[in-house]
This record gives sequence, C-alpha cells and structure tokens, in this order.
Amino acid sequence: MIIVHHPQEGARYIVALAAALPGEHVIAADDAPDGSDAYFVCWQPPAGFFKRFAAPRAVFVLGAGVNHLLARNDLPPHVPLIRLTDAGMASQMIEYARYGVLAWQRDFDRYRAQQAEQRWQVLPAVARSEVRVGVLGLGEMGGHVAAALAADGYRVSGLARTARDIHGVRCLSGAGALEALLGGSDVVVNLLPATAETRHLLNERTLARLPRGAALVHAGRGSQLDEDALLAALESGQLRFALLDVFADEPLPAGHPLWTHPRVTVTPHVAAQTMPADAAAQIASKLRQLARDEPVAGLVERTRGY
Amino acid sequence: MIIVHHPQEGARYIVALAAALPGEHVIAADDAPDGSDAYFVCWQPPAGFFKRFAAPRAVFVLGAGVNHLLARNDLPPHVPLIRLTDAGMASQMIEYARYGVLAWQRDFDRYRAQQAEQRWQVLPAVARSEVRVGVLGLGEMGGHVAAALAADGYRVSGLARTARDIHGVRCLSGAGALEALLGGSDVVVNLLPATAETRHLLNERTLARLPRGAALVHAGRGSQLDEDALLAALESGQLRFALLDVFADEPLPAGHPLWTHPRVTVTPHVAAQTMPADAAAQIASKLRQLARDEPVAGLVERTRGY
Ligand SMILES: NC(=O)c1ccc[n+]([C@@H]2O[C@H](COP(=O)([O-])OP(=O)(O)OC[C@H]3O[C@@H](n4cnc5c(N)ncnc54)[C@H](OP(=O)(O)O)[C@@H]3O)[C@@H](O)[C@H]2O)c1
Ligand SMILES: NC(=O)c1ccc[n+]([C@@H]2O[C@H](COP(=O)([O-])OP(=O)(O)OC[C@H]3O[C@@H](n4cnc5c(N)ncnc54)[C@H](OP(=O)(O)O)[C@@H]3O)[C@@H](O)[C@H]2O)c1
Repeated sequence: MIIVHHPQEGARYIVALAAALPGEHVIAADDAPDGSDAYFVCWQPPAGFFKRFAAPRAVFVLGAGVNHLLARNDLPPHVPLIRLTDAGMASQMIEYARYGVLAWQRDFDRYRAQQAEQRWQVLPAVARSEVRVGVLGLGEMGGHVAAALAADGYRVSGLARTARDIHGVRCLSGAGALEALLGGSDVVVNLLPATAETRHLLNERTLARLPRGAALVHAGRGSQLDEDALLAALESGQLRFALLDVFADEPLPAGHPLWTHPRVTVTPHVAAQTMPADAAAQIASKLRQLARDEPVAGLVERTRGY
Repeated sequence: MIIVHHPQEGARYIVALAAALPGEHVIAADDAPDGSDAYFVCWQPPAGFFKRFAAPRAVFVLGAGVNHLLARNDLPPHVPLIRLTDAGMASQMIEYARYGVLAWQRDFDRYRAQQAEQRWQVLPAVARSEVRVGVLGLGEMGGHVAAALAADGYRVSGLARTARDIHGVRCLSGAGALEALLGGSDVVVNLLPATAETRHLLNERTLARLPRGAALVHAGRGSQLDEDALLAALESGQLRFALLDVFADEPLPAGHPLWTHPRVTVTPHVAAQTMPADAAAQIASKLRQLARDEPVAGLVERTRGY
C-alpha cells in the first residue's frame, strides 16, 4: 500500500503514482485505515501525522527539504527517509538563478528604477565573463545551477561541505571558504539545506563580505537568512537587490517589509516545483530498488541532517 | 585616414581602432580637415555630416541599423556601407531575449503583480518545452537568438524574408508566414530591420493574432511597432507584458504612457551594444579585405534597405 499526503496536489500524485505503479494500491492519507502498514509519499506531513499508522516502510519526501521529518516523535529513527533526486527541479532552479543573474548583469533592476523616474540613461555593458557568481550548496540543486551558469559563460564559484569537482566551477569547502566565496561574488545564489549550521548563515557579518552592490538570489530555506540584516544591507546600498523565494515565515505575512521593498522581488516558494509525473517515475524505480535490497539514492543521513 | 564619428564613445573607438590598425591615422571627425579623403567609422552621423569631406572610401556602421545612411544627399550611392557582422552583440541580444522569455515562462511578471498586492499564490509550473517563442527576423541578431533559445529547450519558430535553415528552429517565410508565426507564439521577439515593409508590422491586426496572454520582446526598431496598438493590447489583456528596448521616438519622451504602464519594461536601446574592441578588430579585417579587393561580409544592399 502507498499512502499519499499532499495538501494541494494529492489527487495529481495519486493519479501519477497509480499510473507508474500498476497493481499497487495507492490511497490518500485521509482514506487510509488506522494501523495501515504502508510506504508513504508526503509533502510536509503535520506533527503527529504518522501516529495512527504502523511504522512506515519508508517515507518518500516530496519537495526538497527534509528537516520537518527529522526529530519528530511520530516517526521512529529506523524508518528510511528518501528524497527524490531531481524530478525536474534542477532545470527549474537553473531558470530561477539565471533570471537573477541576468537581472544583475544586464542592469534590469537599475533600468526599472530609471523607468520609475522616466530617465533614459545607458549603463555600460557588462559581459558574462565579467560576472562572478557564488553558489552556496553544490547538491542536487546547487551542483546543476553552478554547472549551468558556468556553461553560460559566467565566472562561477561554489561552496559545499565536502570537496567537490564540477567542470568549470571553482569549488570551495572548509574553514574560511564561505568568506572567501562571498568576497568575490557579484551575485550569490543560496541553495543550502536547512541545518543547525546553516541557520542565519547569511547575516550582517557575512553579507558585509560581499562586494558593494552585489545581489542575492535566495532559494534554499528561509531559516538561512537573517531578514533584518538583509533589509539593512539593501538600505545601505551594500546589496543592489534580492530575489527571494523562501522566508523565515511562509507564506510571507501580510505587512512584512519584504513585500514592499522596491529592490526586493518576492516569489512564493516556487523556484523549483516537483513535477508529479517525474516524481512518480522516480518513486517507482526506488521502490523496485528497495524490494531488491539495492542501495537507494536520496536516502537521508539523519546525523548530517540532509 | 580613418575618421571616427560617435557622439558618446568616440574616444574609446579611436583608441581601439588605433590599436587594431597600427600605422593608420585615426582621427575624430571634429578634428579632420575639410576635404579629407578617408574611410569612416560612424554611429548615426547627422544629416549633412559627410558634405565637407571627399566621398568616403567606405562607411563602417556602428550599431545595427543602417536606414539613417540610405537616401541621404550627402552620401553618393556608390559608397560602400559596411555593417559589422556581430561585434559581441548577438550574445547580448540572446541575454535580452532570454530574460523576456524567462519572465513569461516563470511568471515573474505575475508574481510581481501579486507582490504589489501582498498575495502569496503559487502558479502552475510551465516547462521550457511548453513555451512557444516566435522570432521575427533571422539575421545576425535573430538567427543567433532563435538558435540559442532552441538550444535552451524552448519551442522556437522564426520568420525571415527568404528561406532559412537553423538547427532546432522552424523557419518560415513568404505569404502568410507572419500570421502563422504569431498565431503560435507565447512570446514574440522582434528583431527585424527597419524597412518600408516592416513599418508598423506589429499593429492592431497582427497583435490580435497572438494567443491571449502572450508577451512581446521588442528590440528591432521603433518604427516597426504601432505603440497605440500595443497599449490597447496590454489594456485588453491580449498582451500580458512588453519588454521594450526601441521606440518610435528615442529617447522615449517624458510623459509618454509607455514609461508608466505597469506591464511595460522600458530599457534605453541597450539590448545589444557594440563593444569597441570587437568592432575595431572587425573593421581592421574588413579593411584588409577591401585592400585585397575581396568580398566583404556585411556590405549593405541599398535596394533591399538592409
Ligand atoms: N525554493 C525552492 O523551490 C526549492 C526547491 C528545491 C530545493 N530547495 C532548497 O534548496 C536547498 C538545496 O537542496 P538540494 O536538493 O540541492 O540539497 P542537497 O542535494 O542535500 O545539497 C546540499 C548541498 O549543500 C552543502 N552543504 C550542506 N551543509 C553545508 C554547510 N554547512 N556548509 C557548506 N555547504 C553545505 C552540501 O555539501 P556536500 O556536497 O559536501 O554534502 C551539498 O552540496 C534545500 O534547502 C532545499 O530545501 C528549494
Ligand atoms: N536594440 C538593440 O540594441 C539592437 C542591437 C542590434 C540590432 N538591433 C536591431 O535588430 C534588427 C536586426 O538586426 P540584424 O543585424 O539581425 O539584421 P540582419 O542581419 O539584416 O537580419 C534581418 C533579418 O530580418 C529578415 N527580414 C528583413 N525584412 C523582412 C521582412 N519584410 N519580413 C520578414 N523578414 C524580414 C531578414 O531576412 P533574410 O534572412 O531573408 O534576409 C533577416 O533574417 C535591426 O532592426 C537592428 O536595428 C537592435
């Protein structure tokens, strides 16, 4: 049995999974009997969600973050948590990052400000090879984004926890790497996971490392950014603009100053959406691997937290 | 002797040309004596500009449009007009078009409108393969733009005067081709030259051919667009947004409604700027071809008008 929990797209996932797994019983969580012994496919299950079922055989995590599934008392630690490795998300994240980098390179933010003043003024052209992009996190999202922007012709550096090797990308890790990367980044693209270590990683001190007039593309998790520090950096001119997809509180509360700042673009956590058909195909193949006791890509390491 | 006329960047061009052509006398038009017998490198020379010189040996045209050099009484028709074939401009034009296409695909315009209302609402994801882009003009600019967007994964069609063959691009020409192309374009990228035939080519009738909610990226020449028809199409919802780089009157006059329309982005004719070093290298090689009586790429055909 496969139990599906997704507040908005449950029906689409049930259809997609049933098509990808003929013969399996795919059912919405609300319709599943107490005590069901099943695999789960979930998007942000609320606290206590798993209590009324037998311990899951495995939980497939829709959406990229897994922190909401760690350290909860309704899920025994032996249950495998399995993330999807891409499901069409990396190509979307590339688009999101590209849009932010193009805005900086081609001065679309400045021309917008000039337009508001009805000012016609040509700004000097900047070539791609002159734009330094720093990508924080080189995993499923960041690794593809860094590689794609390097292929576009930008000067790309990236940060990971462990040493990485990506064609055309200067990969950094270890002590001092974050500061070194920020110091040479005209545009920072944040794609780190939400862990204890990355909480408020972007703060007054680290934002001050950026060259004056840099831009932030923020699509990891809201917890990673000190939003007050961001607003101060925008006010002082340290940051030219911010393209924000994730927030400390989501939905971003009405009246929050980020909604109205003229140099902030807000998108509602859509930088990369999971595509149901892609996700279902991946889950089907991972279930076959589990059945054959083969290693499954995307298994979450609980001690690491991602 | 090489005489340079460029109102803003004359000094940069003189330096770049002198470096690319050691031994040649490179001089600003203002400093050149009456009757000088020379090659010219010009950006939009004013009416009567050539009167005080001997008939130019050739005129190298900076910037892509040549219409201001045709049908003028200070330039005999036998003088070769030579355009630069690229000079770093195509890669800039690709960036400009990509930004407009990404805005449509990823709903950045709609999210901006939602942000103004502090509304957090996810719109369904659209894949690149679902976005139909129509490129008007498949020359130095449009040909590269169409090829690059096709390589990005968009569904690209293009229009030229004569039959063209570009990998991954459905190329149209001839009677009815414009209407067919517009009917299947979510985003239209206009890169036609300014000729008698292309004047107001984008008008009430042709804009009505687009699927409702399409977008216009307009970077050819201002004469090609009926701006009143554009404003009406935006008002009716026929067009979702317009990214405009060229205008009937440039600079766009203060108070013009395009400055303030919420779904219009105005940039000051910067979609693709000529880079002096690239231009100088090209002019040097074309001068060597002229000296050897070899065919020179970029020679304007006066009867065609481009
Ligand atoms: N906004 C959206 O729509 C959206 C969509 C998808 C994903 N996301 C977010 O994007 C982020 C990345 O997702 P992902 O799937 O790419 O994750 P992932 O595959 O787990 O990759 C995480 C990357 O971050 C690095 N990292 C972890 N902790 C670090 C630290 N303390 N310092 C430096 N580097 C560190 C990892 O290093 P190693 O390579 O050494 O392990 C790895 O390269 C997540 O926060 C996710 O929630 C957002
Ligand atoms: N905004 C900026 O910064 C900027 C920068 C550079 C250029 N531009 C503008 O971009 C435009 C294109 O420049 P380019 O260098 O690519 O010109 P080009 O090389 O001369 O190419 C013109 C293209 O348009 C096609 N064409 C001409 N008349 C046509 C008609 N009546 N119907 C259909 N197709 C027609 C031609 O067809 P064939 O292939 O059959 O000849 C050719 O493919 C020009 O208006 C130029 O001023 C603007």
